[in-house]
Amino acid sequence: MVQRKRAPLRSAEAKRARVAIAGATGYAGQELVRWMAGHPAARITAAMSSAPDGPPRALPALNRIWDGVVEPFSLERLVEEADVVFLALPEEAAATNAPALLDRGVRVIDLSGAFRLRDATLRERWYPATRIGALKPVYGLTERNYAAIRTAQLVTNPGCYPTAALLALGPLADAGLLTGDIVIDAKSGISGAGKKPSERTHFSEADGNIAAYGVFGHRHQPEIEQELGAPVVFVPHYVPLDRGILETIFGRLRPGTTVQDVADVMEAAYRDAPFVRLTGETLPEIKHVAHTNFCDIGWRVDGSGRLLMVSVIDNLLKGAAGQAIQNLNVALGLDERTGLLPIG
Amino acid sequence: MVQRKRAPLRSAEAKRARVAIAGATGYAGQELVRWMAGHPAARITAAMSSAPDGPPRALPALNRIWDGVVEPFSLERLVEEADVVFLALPEEAAATNAPALLDRGVRVIDLSGAFRLRDATLRERWYPATRIGALKPVYGLTERNYAAIRTAQLVTNPGCYPTAALLALGPLADAGLLTGDIVIDAKSGISGAGKKPSERTHFSEADGNIAAYGVFGHRHQPEIEQELGAPVVFVPHYVPLDRGILETIFGRLRPGTTVQDVADVMEAAYRDAPFVRLTGETLPEIKHVAHTNFCDIGWRVDGSGRLLMVSVIDNLLKGAAGQAIQNLNVALGLDERTGLLPIG
Amino acid sequence: MVQRKRAPLRSAEAKRARVAIAGATGYAGQELVRWMAGHPAARITAAMSSAPDGPPRALPALNRIWDGVVEPFSLERLVEEADVVFLALPEEAAATNAPALLDRGVRVIDLSGAFRLRDATLRERWYPATRIGALKPVYGLTERNYAAIRTAQLVTNPGCYPTAALLALGPLADAGLLTGDIVIDAKSGISGAGKKPSERTHFSEADGNIAAYGVFGHRHQPEIEQELGAPVVFVPHYVPLDRGILETIFGRLRPGTTVQDVADVMEAAYRDAPFVRLTGETLPEIKHVAHTNFCDIGWRVDGSGRLLMVSVIDNLLKGAAGQAIQNLNVALGLDERTGLLPIG
Amino acid sequence: MVQRKRAPLRSAEAKRARVAIAGATGYAGQELVRWMAGHPAARITAAMSSAPDGPPRALPALNRIWDGVVEPFSLERLVEEADVVFLALPEEAAATNAPALLDRGVRVIDLSGAFRLRDATLRERWYPATRIGALKPVYGLTERNYAAIRTAQLVTNPGCYPTAALLALGPLADAGLLTGDIVIDAKSGISGAGKKPSERTHFSEADGNIAAYGVFGHRHQPEIEQELGAPVVFVPHYVPLDRGILETIFGRLRPGTTVQDVADVMEAAYRDAPFVRLTGETLPEIKHVAHTNFCDIGWRVDGSGRLLMVSVIDNLLKGAAGQAIQNLNVALGLDERTGLLPIG
Repeated sequence: MVQRKRAPLRSAEAKRARVAIAGATGYAGQELVRWMAGHPAARITAAMSSAPDGPPRALPALNRIWDGVVEPFSLERLVEEADVVFLALPEEAAATNAPALLDRGVRVIDLSGAFRLRDATLRERWYPATRIGALKPVYGLTERNYAAIRTAQLVTNPGCYPTAALLALGPLADAGLLTGDIVIDAKSGISGAGKKPSERTHFSEADGNIAAYGVFGHRHQPEIEQELGAPVVFVPHYVPLDRGILETIFGRLRPGTTVQDVADVMEAAYRDAPFVRLTGETLPEIKHVAHTNFCDIGWRVDGSGRLLMVSVIDNLLKGAAGQAIQNLNVALGLDERTGLLPIG
Repeated sequence: MVQRKRAPLRSAEAKRARVAIAGATGYAGQELVRWMAGHPAARITAAMSSAPDGPPRALPALNRIWDGVVEPFSLERLVEEADVVFLALPEEAAATNAPALLDRGVRVIDLSGAFRLRDATLRERWYPATRIGALKPVYGLTERNYAAIRTAQLVTNPGCYPTAALLALGPLADAGLLTGDIVIDAKSGISGAGKKPSERTHFSEADGNIAAYGVFGHRHQPEIEQELGAPVVFVPHYVPLDRGILETIFGRLRPGTTVQDVADVMEAAYRDAPFVRLTGETLPEIKHVAHTNFCDIGWRVDGSGRLLMVSVIDNLLKGAAGQAIQNLNVALGLDERTGLLPIG
Repeated sequence: MVQRKRAPLRSAEAKRARVAIAGATGYAGQELVRWMAGHPAARITAAMSSAPDGPPRALPALNRIWDGVVEPFSLERLVEEADVVFLALPEEAAATNAPALLDRGVRVIDLSGAFRLRDATLRERWYPATRIGALKPVYGLTERNYAAIRTAQLVTNPGCYPTAALLALGPLADAGLLTGDIVIDAKSGISGAGKKPSERTHFSEADGNIAAYGVFGHRHQPEIEQELGAPVVFVPHYVPLDRGILETIFGRLRPGTTVQDVADVMEAAYRDAPFVRLTGETLPEIKHVAHTNFCDIGWRVDGSGRLLMVSVIDNLLKGAAGQAIQNLNVALGLDERTGLLPIG
Repeated sequence: MVQRKRAPLRSAEAKRARVAIAGATGYAGQELVRWMAGHPAARITAAMSSAPDGPPRALPALNRIWDGVVEPFSLERLVEEADVVFLALPEEAAATNAPALLDRGVRVIDLSGAFRLRDATLRERWYPATRIGALKPVYGLTERNYAAIRTAQLVTNPGCYPTAALLALGPLADAGLLTGDIVIDAKSGISGAGKKPSERTHFSEADGNIAAYGVFGHRHQPEIEQELGAPVVFVPHYVPLDRGILETIFGRLRPGTTVQDVADVMEAAYRDAPFVRLTGETLPEIKHVAHTNFCDIGWRVDGSGRLLMVSVIDNLLKGAAGQAIQNLNVALGLDERTGLLPIG
């Protein structure tokens, strides 16, 4: 087996980066195709469904944006045609295919949860198909892990809920400003439930409705706790909208901490982060980030040191495909905005 | 087999009418349960799913309104326990069970389309499982077929789209006021697609979207034409709302006909119809009829004799369960408003 | 001034109870009209807008349900024509008119917040127009204040958010089962923002969006704290649906308390409460209570004593008009379900 | 007054095109800002509100995409700073400012209806503030008027409804394939009603509802008829979604015309049109064009020569801002896709 070089590509080479998308017909997969089709420094060399059979099919919504066809899944063709592969597959498929690709010298950005948890017991519980072996997955929360992503062979793209939670809480936790319980009440659009029809995703069940789910048992809770280094209470809900997540975060500041301290820490953390927009006391809204890769974060502090944060993302972009492309850019040595935001 | 009497029950007897619902877990079925639970002159003696097996199940949304359980389907129990059965079953099941019930002396109000079409060729095309035999189905558009429904053993409850179309157009067609093409552009809420999850009913497909379907090939078109006695162009659409149908009807008046003629005909037709509300030049809105058994109808006429009508109903009530109960009331000799609207 | 008797009416008399609605064109006001129109033991003798002038107007959506007209506001006519008046007016108008009606011997059920807060400082802050004087407002959370409501002259109907919160937390607080912080994350449909058009209620702003508001400064927070006797963190959000509130409540149980203890306390509290439905570990959904007067409550407890409760209501019914009618029933000595739920 | 040259700019010059947006805070205006911010061959030199006073304000949703401020309206500054001005103003303001700008040598792309109607009587009725004088407005339906737009000083951008209707019907009308009545049933998202809050745009009125409006009296009807050269019946509706228009068009083909003839004409017409996607017998959906400048068109023909077409656009893009930018590109001599679609 030929070993291909694994060093991060420079900008010049990157212009020719060959990128494939496995799982291109799901919601996140189609966003990958849509955005990669216009990427100036990489090109889609293959788009595959998650099944190894079935006829090739076009993506009519993307006609004129991307005029290729989605082919059946083929590991062999991924190896042949791609320098980097986005895996937007079910966990089990990702658990199997990521190691196989890495083994053949192909870099992988995995959008599933298969490689996110480092604790073996938790991983066994939530992602039993995963065999970590000698793999060194790098957690792909771009703003907080930039350096490691640059050289990673396997980027494990964060979950949608953890992305919004960690971008809000991470800097404050790092600075030691938090104390006591952290409660995260998360509201997600229905696209977060995936494309497979079910009672939950039926319009007549979701419309006019809200449903809490996964209480005390959602696999994104250990993911948040792992990256934050602190326990959280996390309750997700589906709300009747298509795209977007809003998380309302309830915490408490260490005595003596002021709202200005919060602002200072947040601003320092995201001074150079093009996709994090701090809104301060003006709480952010989903509508401002829908169809973008932004994460908007606002906060309030009351007289007794209670902290309230609101963090919003598009679950399919910053919560999935957008962040994956941002990670691709970093891994290729490109400006992280490439293909996602005008640079100028 | 004992022949039970088939004469319409009087009000006194009706107080004891035993009514069963087959197909009680679907959208229309649950509305039947909800409204029949409060019906002052009949009682639910059985509620069944459409499958002959599976465990009994409650309907949590209806707890305290109706505290029974939905049992597996059993023709035998329907015969034993009910004077009248609402069939809210798939067409094939209705085609089989309606004759069996009638044969055993049970009156049937069928919400499926199995017995709606009188033309054998059309029926064979759209409802191939139906064997009409000696059955005499009565088309249950209450306002236009009141007398026949009183003594019917088999009421074939109209389709949702035909209900809205025929209540608007019927009186004008009867009066000979129409000429030329009739175009019906119908918009339905997603509950009209039924409870079974599919790509079409997925929130993320339906939200923010409109889809025309069944163009030149929807089985409600021959149903409308049969009852109207004239050809129509009928195109239904799904729009992102849960409950309700709005039909925009484009026609042309016979020369010399005025808007006042239209109003006179409509008012005469519905003078005694408690569930038809004429809004005249103020075009009606779905929101005013949602969760009710009303059909609201408005119209406009331009200087050249063009007629525009708008007709709205709740597809699950006047378009299904509500009209079925209205028909039950008529069949039992009760005030047709019983259980549907305050009387007095 | 003639003193009219104030004792609760018995059922026989109640059949003739004369009820007026002031503020009949708003969302809660129209629900009052809709439901009172079918009330078997009271009749609407007047329905008024909140303005003293303007032409009488019908409520087209309620045609055939209630065929009266909404007249301009007149205190004098309310006194003449009603035994009990529902005030669905802005706070300032309620603050003025409630005392005037009471003074003339008319019982008042006030849906505004004007008389809810007992602490003078808080009342002055949130409802500055209110002069409490010798008034003895009774907090109308029916399930928790039944006896006092029976003889109250002034029932102050609870806020929508407090209703859902207090029905969930009240019994546990009474039983001393709670310890530590209580966080209430509340999600409301847009009808909760009232009928007046604004940027917030614009479809294109609300659709696909969620907005936290009133953080650390919503007047329902002191109302909850007053009735609960404990501080809470309360953050409301608007979500893109019309009717309904879902509250996610995060608390902690006193050490040693089990999920069975919670269930026992809740079941004991609501054994005789027809409108509270306990769903236990199955978390409730807005859709099951929309267009009803129910409050559905479910809960989960984790291994470390964390409590999560979910409480849902229709904000216009149990959160406003429905509970007001429930209170009317109690005040008139009727079964509290009268006109709201089949009794049988 | 210095006369600036009016010839279409070449690509090289176009790179420096200075573009201003008047009316930048409305829905179409914000889309102009969003898309022009990333335009590679023009730059936003000024963005103004429609009012001459008030403080400068940012557009938080566009932060990082466009970091300028929206200033009060100033004709003088538009003249100084822009080669081309997009007017996204109310009709009256457009009627006044367009001539003033043209007079000073600034090219104008007007998104209002002020200059769309050529018939003086109709224009007087629908746009009474307009004084056409010596102006030569060019109707900016890009695909059908490309050559004239290249040199136009005043492009009158089409209405949203006419865009969808004319792109579907225009080629068939030109080819003489149509006969008899044409009925257009149009469904629009609520953003089409503009940003100003009203009862119509209130979420609780629009959600779960559909409303026909402007029956026999919408100003887009004469606009469609003018460009089509044939009368149409046009009825618009608001449906509960934010962005998008779907038009269902009912017509009749000249005897002998086949579905293949229709396909041939449509394909010939749009062979080189990057933003028109023909879907043939697969009817198009709003969701596929939302947030894009595409118009998707499908059709069906029945055995008797009836034609049904469905045409969909995003009302704020191809129906407003997107087409305006497409027209800018043509006027500047650029590839019409510039800034709207990847080219390559």
